[in-house]
Amino acid sequence: MELNSSADKSGLPPGSLVHIGEVHDITSKISIIQYNADTLVQHEDVIFSELSQFKDSDLITWINIDGLSDTRVAESIGHEFNIHPLVLEDILSTQQRPKLEEYEDYLYLVLKGISAESDAGFKLQYDQISVLLLEKYVITFKEKADDAFKSIYHRMENPHGRMRKTGSDYLAYALLDAIVDEYFVVGDSLDEIIEPLEDSLLLNPAEEILLTIQQIRRELISMRRSVSPLRELLSTIQRSDNTLLTVETLRYYADIHDHVLRVTDSLESYRERIAIMQDIYLSSISNKMNETMKVLTIYASIFIPLTFIAGVYGMNFDYMPELKWQWAYPVLWGVFISTGIVQLIYLKKKKWL
Amino acid sequence: MELNSSADKSGLPPGSLVHIGEVHDITSKISIIQYNADTLVQHEDVIFSELSQFKDSDLITWINIDGLSDTRVAESIGHEFNIHPLVLEDILSTQQRPKLEEYEDYLYLVLKGISAESDAGFKLQYDQISVLLLEKYVITFKEKADDAFKSIYHRMENPHGRMRKTGSDYLAYALLDAIVDEYFVVGDSLDEIIEPLEDSLLLNPAEEILLTIQQIRRELISMRRSVSPLRELLSTIQRSDNTLLTVETLRYYADIHDHVLRVTDSLESYRERIAIMQDIYLSSISNKMNETMKVLTIYASIFIPLTFIAGVYGMNFDYMPELKWQWAYPVLWGVFISTGIVQLIYLKKKKWL
Amino acid sequence: MELNSSADKSGLPPGSLVHIGEVHDITSKISIIQYNADTLVQHEDVIFSELSQFKDSDLITWINIDGLSDTRVAESIGHEFNIHPLVLEDILSTQQRPKLEEYEDYLYLVLKGISAESDAGFKLQYDQISVLLLEKYVITFKEKADDAFKSIYHRMENPHGRMRKTGSDYLAYALLDAIVDEYFVVGDSLDEIIEPLEDSLLLNPAEEILLTIQQIRRELISMRRSVSPLRELLSTIQRSDNTLLTVETLRYYADIHDHVLRVTDSLESYRERIAIMQDIYLSSISNKMNETMKVLTIYASIFIPLTFIAGVYGMNFDYMPELKWQWAYPVLWGVFISTGIVQLIYLKKKKWL
Amino acid sequence: MELNSSADKSGLPPGSLVHIGEVHDITSKISIIQYNADTLVQHEDVIFSELSQFKDSDLITWINIDGLSDTRVAESIGHEFNIHPLVLEDILSTQQRPKLEEYEDYLYLVLKGISAESDAGFKLQYDQISVLLLEKYVITFKEKADDAFKSIYHRMENPHGRMRKTGSDYLAYALLDAIVDEYFVVGDSLDEIIEPLEDSLLLNPAEEILLTIQQIRRELISMRRSVSPLRELLSTIQRSDNTLLTVETLRYYADIHDHVLRVTDSLESYRERIAIMQDIYLSSISNKMNETMKVLTIYASIFIPLTFIAGVYGMNFDYMPELKWQWAYPVLWGVFISTGIVQLIYLKKKKWL
Amino acid sequence: MELNSSADKSGLPPGSLVHIGEVHDITSKISIIQYNADTLVQHEDVIFSELSQFKDSDLITWINIDGLSDTRVAESIGHEFNIHPLVLEDILSTQQRPKLEEYEDYLYLVLKGISAESDAGFKLQYDQISVLLLEKYVITFKEKADDAFKSIYHRMENPHGRMRKTGSDYLAYALLDAIVDEYFVVGDSLDEIIEPLEDSLLLNPAEEILLTIQQIRRELISMRRSVSPLRELLSTIQRSDNTLLTVETLRYYADIHDHVLRVTDSLESYRERIAIMQDIYLSSISNKMNETMKVLTIYASIFIPLTFIAGVYGMNFDYMPELKWQWAYPVLWGVFISTGIVQLIYLKKKKWL
Ligand SMILES: [Mg+2]
Ligand SMILES: [Mg+2]
Ligand SMILES: [Mg+2]
Ligand SMILES: [Mg+2]
Ligand SMILES: [Mg+2]
Ligand SMILES: [Mg+2]
Ligand SMILES: [Mg+2]
Ligand SMILES: [Mg+2]
Ligand SMILES: [Mg+2]
Ligand SMILES: [Mg+2]
Ligand SMILES: [Mg+2]
Ligand SMILES: [Mg+2]
Ligand SMILES: [Mg+2]
Ligand SMILES: [Mg+2]
Ligand SMILES: [Mg+2]
Ligand SMILES: [Mg+2]
Ligand SMILES: [Mg+2]
Ligand SMILES: [Mg+2]
Ligand SMILES: [Mg+2]
Ligand SMILES: [Mg+2]
Ligand SMILES: [Mg+2]
Ligand SMILES: [Mg+2]
Ligand SMILES: [Mg+2]
Ligand SMILES: [Mg+2]
Ligand SMILES: [Mg+2]
Ligand SMILES: [Mg+2]
Ligand SMILES: [Mg+2]
Ligand SMILES: [Mg+2]
Ligand SMILES: [Mg+2]
Ligand SMILES: [Mg+2]
Ligand SMILES: [Mg+2]
Repeated sequence: MELNSSADKSGLPPGSLVHIGEVHDITSKISIIQYNADTLVQHEDVIFSELSQFKDSDLITWINIDGLSDTRVAESIGHEFNIHPLVLEDILSTQQRPKLEEYEDYLYLVLKGISAESDAGFKLQYDQISVLLLEKYVITFKEKADDAFKSIYHRMENPHGRMRKTGSDYLAYALLDAIVDEYFVVGDSLDEIIEPLEDSLLLNPAEEILLTIQQIRRELISMRRSVSPLRELLSTIQRSDNTLLTVETLRYYADIHDHVLRVTDSLESYRERIAIMQDIYLSSISNKMNETMKVLTIYASIFIPLTFIAGVYGMNFDYMPELKWQWAYPVLWGVFISTGIVQLIYLKKKKWL
Repeated sequence: MELNSSADKSGLPPGSLVHIGEVHDITSKISIIQYNADTLVQHEDVIFSELSQFKDSDLITWINIDGLSDTRVAESIGHEFNIHPLVLEDILSTQQRPKLEEYEDYLYLVLKGISAESDAGFKLQYDQISVLLLEKYVITFKEKADDAFKSIYHRMENPHGRMRKTGSDYLAYALLDAIVDEYFVVGDSLDEIIEPLEDSLLLNPAEEILLTIQQIRRELISMRRSVSPLRELLSTIQRSDNTLLTVETLRYYADIHDHVLRVTDSLESYRERIAIMQDIYLSSISNKMNETMKVLTIYASIFIPLTFIAGVYGMNFDYMPELKWQWAYPVLWGVFISTGIVQLIYLKKKKWL
Repeated sequence: MELNSSADKSGLPPGSLVHIGEVHDITSKISIIQYNADTLVQHEDVIFSELSQFKDSDLITWINIDGLSDTRVAESIGHEFNIHPLVLEDILSTQQRPKLEEYEDYLYLVLKGISAESDAGFKLQYDQISVLLLEKYVITFKEKADDAFKSIYHRMENPHGRMRKTGSDYLAYALLDAIVDEYFVVGDSLDEIIEPLEDSLLLNPAEEILLTIQQIRRELISMRRSVSPLRELLSTIQRSDNTLLTVETLRYYADIHDHVLRVTDSLESYRERIAIMQDIYLSSISNKMNETMKVLTIYASIFIPLTFIAGVYGMNFDYMPELKWQWAYPVLWGVFISTGIVQLIYLKKKKWL
Repeated sequence: MELNSSADKSGLPPGSLVHIGEVHDITSKISIIQYNADTLVQHEDVIFSELSQFKDSDLITWINIDGLSDTRVAESIGHEFNIHPLVLEDILSTQQRPKLEEYEDYLYLVLKGISAESDAGFKLQYDQISVLLLEKYVITFKEKADDAFKSIYHRMENPHGRMRKTGSDYLAYALLDAIVDEYFVVGDSLDEIIEPLEDSLLLNPAEEILLTIQQIRRELISMRRSVSPLRELLSTIQRSDNTLLTVETLRYYADIHDHVLRVTDSLESYRERIAIMQDIYLSSISNKMNETMKVLTIYASIFIPLTFIAGVYGMNFDYMPELKWQWAYPVLWGVFISTGIVQLIYLKKKKWL
Repeated sequence: MELNSSADKSGLPPGSLVHIGEVHDITSKISIIQYNADTLVQHEDVIFSELSQFKDSDLITWINIDGLSDTRVAESIGHEFNIHPLVLEDILSTQQRPKLEEYEDYLYLVLKGISAESDAGFKLQYDQISVLLLEKYVITFKEKADDAFKSIYHRMENPHGRMRKTGSDYLAYALLDAIVDEYFVVGDSLDEIIEPLEDSLLLNPAEEILLTIQQIRRELISMRRSVSPLRELLSTIQRSDNTLLTVETLRYYADIHDHVLRVTDSLESYRERIAIMQDIYLSSISNKMNETMKVLTIYASIFIPLTFIAGVYGMNFDYMPELKWQWAYPVLWGVFISTGIVQLIYLKKKKWL
């Protein structure tokens, strides 16, 4: 049973294991890595019914699940590791707010992997990632089968790396760090979009720029929603006295906290730069209208009086002495030209020309 | 005695039991369910004078009252279960802010059921729901006789469900959860309205769209007013050391808390999307005015000088040498056309055409 | 000595007993009620020098003073009941912020009675009310001789009411409750003004509506200033461990606190509805200007080219072959009409007509 | 060495005694008052080298210094009373934020005396006042030689006043109170400027009003900057357990705290009234432009079609049958007038006339 | 390995020592000062491999590194002084948020040196400065080789200065103070730009002024981002009970805290003054458009009716009795002139002229 929104689940008992959100893949792919300083064993495409085979090992075990469609995977994880049904429910529903929940013998963390789409426009992609941290296990659920953890796999192969020598808490840290590092990549691609926009805004404030600005503003709102709860999450983790986390590793969590603060600072900066762009756009529209009005008024103020005078001498009265006068026509041209020049001088003084 | 607003009650002593708010039904319908893991007894249309019969049972008893017009019901509940007169007063007045009050042997919670009207426009309906949680009783007062608790009745029939095996605190949780789940449904119907609005705004920024936007903004304000106090309410409940609530059930209340945070996050997002739409609307009005001005100025700047020249040669002076010249008329057409072309080139360069 | 503003008192020592604010009455009227469950004695127009006679009674004594002009009243109250000079100074100065001060054997509360003027416009009236709560006395000072406490006098006559059976703390509660109840009446009269405004704004956004909106906004600002400090005041009272307040009565103060939260919520809603109205007004002005511009541009774009053509054939050149041609005139009418129709079609396509 | 800004001091070691700010006077004037309940001795124009003579008296000693140019005064005060060099540095630099610092045997307070300039416009004057409160001494440094403490000198002459009977903490209170009382005077003069502005804005929204509004807004910003830190300062003083302050005097500091809250409330009100005025101004500009556009469009829509028709019959075609027709001219006048009337009716219906 | 942004480091393990940010210099210059009250030894252009020679001295040792390109310097510092790899990573990455981190035997502080570019426009330059405070060492890393610490070198030469007599904590204070003092210099240069802008805005609200305003606004945003975290940093330092900091020196850190509060207050003021300028600019654009519209409407309303009348008597009807009438032409001039005058009076009354 797959549903698209939390609303569709209304009426179900809590802990009902249904996948809520877009379906990105038909199956859920399980991969398992077991390691310590000396050993590294990797298992791909594990079947959910075989999960119990990987328990009771002395190695640190990392179980990663890509794709949430097959709810039986979450169910057997829940059964094997004694996970609370409300946690399993949250793992399967991809509309979570980033949060941390402490249970007796595990921590549950959920956060969003974010990436910017490479093609036209600025559109962010979200990937909900749940992390269960146990004494000797880390279990991760990813909504999509993307490369978010690729660098971790790579670093794990180095037997002298810190990761191989420390516990599950450091692995969980490394995963979070990889996710948050990706936020800087998104920030960079945002920079690459905003800077040329700021320049082209000054040259030619076209309506499409405003729409792009507003699109970025919308994406910033949703990105902030996914990032800013991490601040509280990470300060809670640091204050926690949970035995799953060693003092030494907490230093590393503090480092992620610091990175998240930098990301939220950046998002705030972008928001303010967007506001500045919007203000420039709006005032440039007013300026352009002013220019248009001036052109109209210049033409009107010069030619309307002249046209009136020409109209006067186009009248057909029998008794109009000027019409007979020989120099009337050239004199009138003098009037036309001098009136025009007076107008031009006046407009020049008003700085309209 | 029924009154429409808290103001009408001004001058009455505190604890006066009068119904304040719209009257939705003439009578108040009492239904009672008594259950434990083995038994489930349901009583419909109970008369308020018979309430005392349902006390002193070993079962968990849920008394639900639909409709607040008959103040005698609240009065006898107050008498039977020793409820504070100020609580009874609040139950009957449908203008409460969501809140939690702890009394010696019961908790009083009041919150709002919210639903979106199905017909045209976006208009929310509110249903004030009061919950009294006692050791072995849950008493609920609903302003309206709607289906808010329908799913609870259904789930209760399952003897293996968690609800049948736990106490009154879990029932109260389930009721709150049902109410909060409905907020996601409202959010979904809001999404269905906002998304097409965002699209049609870009195509045709008509004034009606602005009015719809403002109407949604008004509804978001009132919905936020009804939802956001729930955050404090639920964090108070979680920190409470009241013996009415077991540690295990508090996990479930934490889950509702999390859902309320998601709802308030969404409301904030909607508010910001509305602000973006309003900004787009306003700047598109300015752009349209600019367009209109340009059209006017283009016509004026091309034809006003030409009309003046035509006016000049419409003058009736006796001595106007050009009038006699044979090629004057075609030459003047040449002047007309070339002046027009020069103007068009100028406007083209100014990017007005 | 009467002064109009706190500024006029600059230079005087603290505790100088001068009346600051508008003078509403020449004299200060003292009325005294003494009561317990069995007895109720009422004294009108007591002279300030006789105040000591009412001390040393076993009854609860409520001394109410209407009007602050006669500073000797406050002086003798201060002397009889040993009130701090800074408190007396605050009582006489009608520009207080609502606040609570705890002294060794009494509490000093000051807040604002608010009422809406019945005639045209929306204008609030403020009445500063000071409450001194002692062990067996309640002393109230009202800036104006209005009906704020009328309902309390009435309820006091009922020997079975809670008021007659409890202490001075409950009387003080009842007085505060009466004042806060009146805020709901103000809210109702505000509703009666805002709702028709919202409707008429959509039909005809006249400038007077904006001025009314801004007037309401101004009044909301000053009302919020008088109401919102009550939140802190009432939560301080509830957390207080002062022996003047019984635990049972604190429940009642909590009820007022709740009412004040509802009032401040409402004020916030009104503020937001006012902001919505202002946004609608401003965008409707822009829309109207757009309409005006369109009408102008339609006339100009249709007739300006035609007038030019007519002007051409009004020229007096000797050699203009078309003038001789027999069908020239009807053909030109054809040109006029078809040019006009082309324009109309173009405008229709641009949705200007 | 005198410098104009904190920036000029960049590079100097901390505690360098240089005067930073405008120089208002060439010399620094020292006056000393020594008093107790029985005695009052006043010394004017004391020389800084004689300061040690006034120590070791049983009287309370108040040393006031007007003008900061002569840095030797601060230096000898620092030497005599063992004041921290950072405090002396702050005293001499007139760009302090109001603040309180507790040292082992003295308190250092710095705040701003504020006065409104009497001449045209609204321009505030600031006077930095430093207060050192010791066991038996109060030392005050004033940037300018104004009357800020005049009322204190006057009240001190009264041997029965509270000031003469209490310690240095009460004197410091009285000085602060005098400074804060002056804020109400500024508020009053602001009221006298804002109220006529609000009226004239409705009658004639001239551009100068906007500039005055913005000038007031600027002054409010700087006044708030000088006043609002006093709130924290005064609540810190009240919570302090410093033995320099008696419990009885703290009541008086609480009174100033209350006054400061009223001042900041007022400043906030003014800010909001200014915002309302600005909104009214902006919408009135839009309304005026609308009016102008309407006048133009009315003239254009009435006369442009008529002028076209007149142009048609001004054409010189040989075959225009209407020109021969005897009643053509009066009939055309009928067309002119009726077309004009139809336009007027249309405009009337559109409420443009 | 040098990278430009935190994003480029995504995928690397934590503690990877790579320089992130612009490269300002090819080498990293190490200078070392060792001092106590009696001795002062200075070493320029030390090579990183010789660093260990300067350990185990009784003197206070200040190691300053200008330029971050050579990551081996940070590496050997880390090795010699046992600095956490995450700290070294932060030192080399120039996109830090100002922060303080306490480690077992050292403090790590990072903040931004800010300077205003001297040439046209208002553009701030940032220099990330890291400070490691150990028992007897202060190690500073500067992104750029600027003069930020020049005044410190100078003051150090004075053997009687406080710096020579106190520990490493006072040196760290002096460095921070020098950085923060520079913020006042930036503030002054901002004042010098904003004040003439405010004046020229009133005289001639050109579009370039708006762009300058928005540029300043952007710079204020980024400066606030670099300054405001210092408030928390400095209040944390003051509350710290770290033995590296003596009570006496903490007074000095409190002084910097106070200076930072003044800087952030100023930034807030500038932000508000910028907002005022923007509001004046926008309303002046509207006013100018109003003026333009009025000029157009004046010309149109005067001449359009007159031109119509002239057009009427330019018609060629055979029967137009007025054309024969001898006084028709002068009478019509009378009509022209009087209509014009009536219009002028009307416009005068409307205050358009
Ligand atoms: Mg559910
Ligand atoms: Mg990282
Ligand atoms: Mg979106
Ligand atoms: Mg880091
Ligand atoms: Mg940080
Ligand atoms: Mg940035
Ligand atoms: Mg705006
Ligand atoms: Mg009541
Ligand atoms: Mg739920
Ligand atoms: Mg509404
Ligand atoms: Mg959940
Ligand atoms: Mg959460
Ligand atoms: Mg959403
Ligand atoms: Mg005073
Ligand atoms: Mg009430
Ligand atoms: Mg007012
Ligand atoms: Mg209540
Ligand atoms: Mg409440
Ligand atoms: Mg309401
Ligand atoms: Mg310095
Ligand atoms: Mg005072
Ligand atoms: Mg200024
Ligand atoms: Mg007072
Ligand atoms: Mg107060
Ligand atoms: Mg006021
Ligand atoms: Mg990394
Ligand atoms: Mg400094
Ligand atoms: Mg920038
Ligand atoms: Mg200082
Ligand atoms: Mg300070
Ligand atoms: Mg400034």
